[in-house]
Amino acid sequence: MTAIAESTTGTRIVLGKNQYGKAEVRLVKITRDTDRHQIEDLNVTSQLHGDFTAAHKDGDNGLVVPTDTQKNTVYGLARDGVGAVEDFLIRLGSHFVNEFEWIEGGRWAAEQYFWDRINDHDHAFSRNKSEVRTAVLEIVNGEKNIVAGIQDLTVLKSTGSEFHGFPVDRYTTLKETSDRILATDVTARWRYSAAAVEAGIDFDAVFADVRKRLLTAFANTHSLALQQTMFAMGEDVLTAHPEIEEIKMSLPNKHHFLVDLEVFGQDNPNEVFYAADRPYGLIEATIQREGGAASHQVWENIPGFC
Amino acid sequence: MTAIAESTTGTRIVLGKNQYGKAEVRLVKITRDTDRHQIEDLNVTSQLHGDFTAAHKDGDNGLVVPTDTQKNTVYGLARDGVGAVEDFLIRLGSHFVNEFEWIEGGRWAAEQYFWDRINDHDHAFSRNKSEVRTAVLEIVNGEKNIVAGIQDLTVLKSTGSEFHGFPVDRYTTLKETSDRILATDVTARWRYSAAAVEAGIDFDAVFADVRKRLLTAFANTHSLALQQTMFAMGEDVLTAHPEIEEIKMSLPNKHHFLVDLEVFGQDNPNEVFYAADRPYGLIEATIQREGGAASHQVWENIPGFC
Amino acid sequence: MTAIAESTTGTRIVLGKNQYGKAEVRLVKITRDTDRHQIEDLNVTSQLHGDFTAAHKDGDNGLVVPTDTQKNTVYGLARDGVGAVEDFLIRLGSHFVNEFEWIEGGRWAAEQYFWDRINDHDHAFSRNKSEVRTAVLEIVNGEKNIVAGIQDLTVLKSTGSEFHGFPVDRYTTLKETSDRILATDVTARWRYSAAAVEAGIDFDAVFADVRKRLLTAFANTHSLALQQTMFAMGEDVLTAHPEIEEIKMSLPNKHHFLVDLEVFGQDNPNEVFYAADRPYGLIEATIQREGGAASHQVWENIPGFC
Amino acid sequence: MTAIAESTTGTRIVLGKNQYGKAEVRLVKITRDTDRHQIEDLNVTSQLHGDFTAAHKDGDNGLVVPTDTQKNTVYGLARDGVGAVEDFLIRLGSHFVNEFEWIEGGRWAAEQYFWDRINDHDHAFSRNKSEVRTAVLEIVNGEKNIVAGIQDLTVLKSTGSEFHGFPVDRYTTLKETSDRILATDVTARWRYSAAAVEAGIDFDAVFADVRKRLLTAFANTHSLALQQTMFAMGEDVLTAHPEIEEIKMSLPNKHHFLVDLEVFGQDNPNEVFYAADRPYGLIEATIQREGGAASHQVWENIPGFC
Repeated sequence: MTAIAESTTGTRIVLGKNQYGKAEVRLVKITRDTDRHQIEDLNVTSQLHGDFTAAHKDGDNGLVVPTDTQKNTVYGLARDGVGAVEDFLIRLGSHFVNEFEWIEGGRWAAEQYFWDRINDHDHAFSRNKSEVRTAVLEIVNGEKNIVAGIQDLTVLKSTGSEFHGFPVDRYTTLKETSDRILATDVTARWRYSAAAVEAGIDFDAVFADVRKRLLTAFANTHSLALQQTMFAMGEDVLTAHPEIEEIKMSLPNKHHFLVDLEVFGQDNPNEVFYAADRPYGLIEATIQREGGAASHQVWENIPGFC
Repeated sequence: MTAIAESTTGTRIVLGKNQYGKAEVRLVKITRDTDRHQIEDLNVTSQLHGDFTAAHKDGDNGLVVPTDTQKNTVYGLARDGVGAVEDFLIRLGSHFVNEFEWIEGGRWAAEQYFWDRINDHDHAFSRNKSEVRTAVLEIVNGEKNIVAGIQDLTVLKSTGSEFHGFPVDRYTTLKETSDRILATDVTARWRYSAAAVEAGIDFDAVFADVRKRLLTAFANTHSLALQQTMFAMGEDVLTAHPEIEEIKMSLPNKHHFLVDLEVFGQDNPNEVFYAADRPYGLIEATIQREGGAASHQVWENIPGFC
Repeated sequence: MTAIAESTTGTRIVLGKNQYGKAEVRLVKITRDTDRHQIEDLNVTSQLHGDFTAAHKDGDNGLVVPTDTQKNTVYGLARDGVGAVEDFLIRLGSHFVNEFEWIEGGRWAAEQYFWDRINDHDHAFSRNKSEVRTAVLEIVNGEKNIVAGIQDLTVLKSTGSEFHGFPVDRYTTLKETSDRILATDVTARWRYSAAAVEAGIDFDAVFADVRKRLLTAFANTHSLALQQTMFAMGEDVLTAHPEIEEIKMSLPNKHHFLVDLEVFGQDNPNEVFYAADRPYGLIEATIQREGGAASHQVWENIPGFC
Repeated sequence: MTAIAESTTGTRIVLGKNQYGKAEVRLVKITRDTDRHQIEDLNVTSQLHGDFTAAHKDGDNGLVVPTDTQKNTVYGLARDGVGAVEDFLIRLGSHFVNEFEWIEGGRWAAEQYFWDRINDHDHAFSRNKSEVRTAVLEIVNGEKNIVAGIQDLTVLKSTGSEFHGFPVDRYTTLKETSDRILATDVTARWRYSAAAVEAGIDFDAVFADVRKRLLTAFANTHSLALQQTMFAMGEDVLTAHPEIEEIKMSLPNKHHFLVDLEVFGQDNPNEVFYAADRPYGLIEATIQREGGAASHQVWENIPGFC
């Protein structure tokens, strides 16, 4: 890294980590080999890594593959099919690393949106908005790190959730409860082991199974704390999927407050709730295999996880 | 209406139409008579009509039922169950009109959110975000006007849509097409006849059938214009439901532009599309019975329809 | 209007009011006659009125000026300058009515965003997001109805607001207060008289003065009710501007709840507040000249006002 | 960290990094020592670090300071004044670390919203939405890491921006330009050195100066690439502020495309632009002092930066 300037304290000011690219390339791919069309709906972001000091220092764009070109490449590669979103990102990222010798790696990410057929129609669909699938590929030193995920999956249990036994101090006003609503928006991201990526993964099948396990563990865990529910969800995923190294979750505790109806002369046996917006609890953790790395660099570029 | 002030032009300045209340009261009602819980999830707005000149002129709140009280009433009435959202609004509106002699009417509205059971679980649910149900009740001179609706229902056809034969002028650059993607977010609102409301309506059943007909007509209409598809959707609803006087729709034409891949040496036989955000087409109409009123006052308070 | 179909009840199903066009055309116009550039930043929507029965019934687009053409026209007309947003909409709407004999009228609307110069720089700007200016033109039977407006103008008084003297019933839990925070997002829309439009209006000057009066009246009114503050704001505008027929406002009462610190052993003399999201009060009214029309059709297409 | 479960591969599944707390506590503090009120408007998030294995494994909440208590503490501490947002976070974080021996550290963050006086009024304000100030405190092993920031600061240059000299491949369609609009939303975060934090920083003064320098460098840099502009902005900040170790920026390149008016018979000498939404360029970098750490753990919890 070239030193570029000198500050008042005598130290030079230099370019540190950097990346650039095109964000939110909206791609809809229709596969129409037969009358029964398939639809794939992605929001793709491409960012490149390399030595771009000259662009930052001198505005020399000789190595700057335009973000517009990155966008075009998304569409060009999609012509040959999309497939599992992680596989598409691998094709996309590999293209840039192979095509331009100075591109050392990068970060490619996508959101995938789901569509259901209307009445099992051949070419009419309605958006299933119940969740969004996410994927990130980071290529570093030739290694492909892949993090898959799910977000915006809103779940709620109307009973089977307690919260008590917590420490009390001057600022504590919360009452203990043995029956409350537990609701959250599941955001989960899991990292595949490098070995599994190398060996090949059926990303669609794993996604479907992880999704099912997260939902089932949420539903079936009698919860004494959202932390406990979260750990059970992650543990079940890791137990079933040896190809997953670790899973991170960020779960808002979406508070549903029991409305005090007594003043109106009514009881309220956990039936009438006020669904609050803010503030909300926020419970975050990594669940991992013992002896796993304390931290993996791929997470540095993935927002919103501890 | 009392005249209150005098402008420089000599005319007095007076209070015209007005309403006030509490907006977006988030209500979650759990019915737990048995172990198999039911969940109802609403966002309720209550607004009252009457002569509130004194509050506007003098800050005299003697007739101003607090918006906080309106909120409390939503929760108090929910204790006895919600049921069809339109029925709940009727109970809510009737309460205010009956309880306070100076409340002449008002406007009560709700959005309803849907939940699916997780694995058919008794008390665990996931949000089905594919659409939102809406309802508005306006009480005017004792008459109950009800408008039901659906929104955020995103649909797409990957073929079976054409657009050609349009006029051309200096500013026309659009090419004709015989095969394009047609996509929209359905927002529809339908008004029940006063007679049908009086006689009683199974609002849940009608909602479910209207939803089904809108989807089916969208899917099955070979479209020469989004206008044509919209009319077919509304016509089918009115044909099947004599209790509905008219239906209004506001349909964005969510453009999916075919990407030009030729410059990359590729063809693109309607397979790779760019899903654009803005601008978008906007197609709006009322579909009604012949001889129906040109305009009904209930619509004045419902935003976003022509 | 041609009858199009026949329902089960024997009445025909017909096309009622309708309009179509292009929404949210994002236009940035730089005026660079001198080194000191000017920037105009608009979000324009164009919708046309006429007899479009054939498009709805048969998919015959012979009269359907494409929404794409409407978009192009926005850009083409902007080449000759924008000016006051209302004047630009008049040029835009007149173009369509004059160019196509079957276009009977329409609705043209815009949001305008403001930019400040950075350090009084000739061509560097920062967005001033404190408010958005709005304008709507509707041409009906050759008459130009113009509604100007302002929105997203968030204001707050930390004292000088009371609320008491309201009726009490079973559901009332609100306490009276003689000192509360009053906060709202001002959304106001005012309609110019047809005569004034005909005679010519300096729209920019009126906008600036209305904005100032709304802010000043909000600040200077000792408030016994948000209704009272709202009326004072509107009254001042109408008193000063004879060219304005009526003004509508929709004001959320953005609740700031005093936090109960007593349980922590602290007092709270109106210093520490929780700013709530939902629910919120919603206060809406028309302030008009005595003898003015009870309702004007231009409002039917403008969402969110009573 | 205790091992908790065993996966099919024989490795145990354990709890990794985790944190929990209350997010988005909306605090409005009015200082009213004199008739001339001050307003402070914050959105505060508190998250605690420690050994919460028991809560995750067994639902044992003995160490779980409730998120509700964290919220209450924000309000309780605000009673004694807020001051610079970073100073408030230090008081907040220190409280938890000192009050509960098992709380090893945590992460406290805030957004601050600005208000202007209306007509220099004593207690009437309007929101200045042109930017949001951010702050993060992380306490780790007793060390206080502080990252300050600014976001949502939208800027534009109508000339003085070029882009050319980039590599061309099969997917390149972008044309070179020597005069384009350059627009971005500035999101910047800068980390103070531990020594400076220890010695004491006038956070408000530094924020004001950094803001001014970012704006000025954006305006005054003749830009050959957004990367170059970004580096100049960061370099100026680091040069002037030895207490800042590094600054990260994430700058969307908000494309303004010149509209092709030739087909309408018009020229367009960089006057009429289409402001696009998606996709957008995304330019991100760290600008730092030579020899600075390649990465600092405080960034791991701050989303959206490379």
